[in-house]
Amino acid sequence: MSDSLKTVITDTQNKFIADPSKALATFSSSSALQEGLRSEVQMRDHTITVDEPESLGGTDAGPNPVELILGALGSCQEITYRAYATALGIPLENVSVKLDGHIDLRGFFGVDDSVPAGYQKITGTVTLESTASEEQLQNLRAAVNAHCPVLDILTRPLPVELELEIKEIAV
Amino acid sequence: MSDSLKTVITDTQNKFIADPSKALATFSSSSALQEGLRSEVQMRDHTITVDEPESLGGTDAGPNPVELILGALGSCQEITYRAYATALGIPLENVSVKLDGHIDLRGFFGVDDSVPAGYQKITGTVTLESTASEEQLQNLRAAVNAHCPVLDILTRPLPVELELEIKEIAV
Repeated sequence: MSDSLKTVITDTQNKFIADPSKALATFSSSSALQEGLRSEVQMRDHTITVDEPESLGGTDAGPNPVELILGALGSCQEITYRAYATALGIPLENVSVKLDGHIDLRGFFGVDDSVPAGYQKITGTVTLESTASEEQLQNLRAAVNAHCPVLDILTRPLPVELELEIKEIAV
Repeated sequence: MSDSLKTVITDTQNKFIADPSKALATFSSSSALQEGLRSEVQMRDHTITVDEPESLGGTDAGPNPVELILGALGSCQEITYRAYATALGIPLENVSVKLDGHIDLRGFFGVDDSVPAGYQKITGTVTLESTASEEQLQNLRAAVNAHCPVLDILTRPLPVELELEIKEIAV
């Protein structure tokens, strides 16, 4: 596995160096609200159900959107650790991540407009199991945090442009 | 459904006004890398599989982390539209969202350190089906975009604090 992953990484890097335009990619999602607060989300061939817990007015049929943000960050850290450990030749047996997102729900519920709607901060722990030295793993951590896409998306202000399309229904 | 959702919203708002400390909440995720680049993510009772497509070195067993970011934003917009339409008494038959995340993969692959690892921007369309007037729906849109947690998380730089825990394995 590691050998083939290393080949994928090296081949991809060489492809992007030769022609940077090949590195431009678009990922997409398509979602629709169902009964209540439940949403079905499609990403290529993959579908997930998103919902709110009952305490927030949903039926708890799936994780809620802000939990998905944590799941995206945790899995992105893990994938980036595996990719960079492989590329740098640093042994890595296991990687796992626990995250907490701290939120003041007065923001979402419109009770106080000085309170942000989203997380105030995310805290957590990345656990590595490895035979590598502490110095190697600290170097790995620096490489991962400089190249983890979701960490970059969350810590940098991202431009989001949403158009509104209205389909009128006759009364 | 709408009546009970309206009651949940009003009761929750009143609870948070009476005691703002009740609005402080923590959401959590716990994830672990499996074979290759596949990760299993747990959020309360809900589990999702995250993976990369084969072109990026994975086995395509689930959406990848940056696709999950789009899914989180789309479903959060939909849930916030339903919640605010209900709270404001604006009719809303359906809401769906299509999103595109634009990325230059030279960032993740470490080919050019001037290229951000995450999305350059997210673009998309929110489609509303409603008997309401255009003015009502534009007011609804303004309320949603001011209170959507994931939109806030993505457009504002978020503090993320990750501790590293190392479990040494004997060589």
